[in-house]
Amino acid sequence: MSTYLITGISGFVGKHLVSCILQKDKNACIYGVGKRACCDLGTHYFRMDLKNQEQVSRLLKKVRPDFIIHLASMSSVQESWNNPQECFDVNANVIINVLTAVKDNNLSSRILTVGSSEVYGNYPEHEMPLKETYPLNPISPYAVTKLFQENICKVYADSFGLDIVMTRSFNHFGAGQDDKFFIPSLVKQLLEIKNGDKKTLLVGNIDIKRDFINVNDVAEIYYKLLYDGKKGEVYNVCSGKPVLLREIVTHCCSILNINPEIIVDRQRVRPNDIYVIYGDNSKVKSVTGWQQKYFLESSLKDIILGNE
Amino acid sequence: MSTYLITGISGFVGKHLVSCILQKDKNACIYGVGKRACCDLGTHYFRMDLKNQEQVSRLLKKVRPDFIIHLASMSSVQESWNNPQECFDVNANVIINVLTAVKDNNLSSRILTVGSSEVYGNYPEHEMPLKETYPLNPISPYAVTKLFQENICKVYADSFGLDIVMTRSFNHFGAGQDDKFFIPSLVKQLLEIKNGDKKTLLVGNIDIKRDFINVNDVAEIYYKLLYDGKKGEVYNVCSGKPVLLREIVTHCCSILNINPEIIVDRQRVRPNDIYVIYGDNSKVKSVTGWQQKYFLESSLKDIILGNE
Repeated sequence: MSTYLITGISGFVGKHLVSCILQKDKNACIYGVGKRACCDLGTHYFRMDLKNQEQVSRLLKKVRPDFIIHLASMSSVQESWNNPQECFDVNANVIINVLTAVKDNNLSSRILTVGSSEVYGNYPEHEMPLKETYPLNPISPYAVTKLFQENICKVYADSFGLDIVMTRSFNHFGAGQDDKFFIPSLVKQLLEIKNGDKKTLLVGNIDIKRDFINVNDVAEIYYKLLYDGKKGEVYNVCSGKPVLLREIVTHCCSILNINPEIIVDRQRVRPNDIYVIYGDNSKVKSVTGWQQKYFLESSLKDIILGNE
Repeated sequence: MSTYLITGISGFVGKHLVSCILQKDKNACIYGVGKRACCDLGTHYFRMDLKNQEQVSRLLKKVRPDFIIHLASMSSVQESWNNPQECFDVNANVIINVLTAVKDNNLSSRILTVGSSEVYGNYPEHEMPLKETYPLNPISPYAVTKLFQENICKVYADSFGLDIVMTRSFNHFGAGQDDKFFIPSLVKQLLEIKNGDKKTLLVGNIDIKRDFINVNDVAEIYYKLLYDGKKGEVYNVCSGKPVLLREIVTHCCSILNINPEIIVDRQRVRPNDIYVIYGDNSKVKSVTGWQQKYFLESSLKDIILGNE
């Protein structure tokens, strides 16, 4: 029986990861840590402030997990612009506590830390897709903390011998995502428009291309990396294809058969936004054998029908 | 009259920097912050824990310095291996507090943050000298925090408009350096041997080449960068020349006219040590017009005579 401990289990990816693990490992024993009061995923749940080193250490010493999946993080770049200090406080200090607890308790847990494609920073279109070997140039507080996470994990893997695998995850989407993100915000607004509760669609900059991967594919990759990822290595988690945000809008409108006026909300336009970002997923494919199962167009239909 | 605020003023570089400022700017008003109980540099001194956000903010709001020179840091790579968590706690959180205080109080202070050549990581000999444009691969907890510092500063300069100049400083040496570092430890031991109090010289790996710059040159560069450095830019601070540590040993022995047995102390050998590291200082020279004044051989003689 394998024991899994998931930090930030009550976030968006958590529940999809739990389903994925339970489906693939019938004997899995899953522990979850989060800041919400409770968690209805049927796992052993600990409410905890991961910024508290002592609590983290005590928990890990008690659970001694075979696998730790570190999802806990401030999840939004936008939020990090509004509150950079909180972002550093959460993202940088929490990973330190997790690594310190594993090291100081001499645990042999395999750790998967979820990072972000944001660490790449601005690359021109002709250098896409982004490869794991590229130099990194974080341009937001969020990205700086995610690079910090990666760099500490690398040091702890290479020099302290911790068994850590890292990801650089690109844009996720899927059922249950917070509507501060593009696709859920879009779907929510379009459904309101369809129902007559709203007239216009508010968007940020939709003339940019991003790499969207369904959260179910993400969860499968994370699971596979727990078993097949190489210690100290970092893997892009992405679809490998860029999609124009405006095309997603058009596609969703056509599913709902509506044609609303589109208004650009300056509040939603990020500083430093670049035209196109997509990743190279050949490394993660080659090490895990993963193949994409959920494609954008059909997934959008499922999300819209699920929300209607 | 210009106001200077120096964090970590009671450390090794602090006093040299104060002398340099007072020599170049007769009307300078210097404030110092440090963790020691007092500071005898004739400056306005505040004893403070820079990890306390509120205290840092209150001080900066009160002083409203024209210049902030951020020296405060855990200064040794070796120490960071022994206590990585303390290193993150000091190096990462303190810079956040300083930047947050400047940003939130809308100060227009020019900030010089002192970073480290350690951010480069392992480069092969044929890629020396290290240039500011190289990709960075930190391989110690210390280096990870110094890269974090650089990256946050870049974000705060580029996106929040803070007026920040950064350095990547190479090995310093000079009067008053803590004897956990190579040259002062060497000089101290050789003087003990000369005096008959000790028989053998304990060293780490001395068959490596490093780039040593006299702390008086360092102080002059920092001063010049306050005025001439470009916002958001990073500068190597180094001599530009590699020196074999064994040659420094030989040189010091010949000054003292002794020839002790040399014993390698495994405790002093660092993990991941690489053969040769030196930097390219053309960027800092071209922007500040700085020229090296203190050369290694004559400086060593001064240090030894000063300690005798």
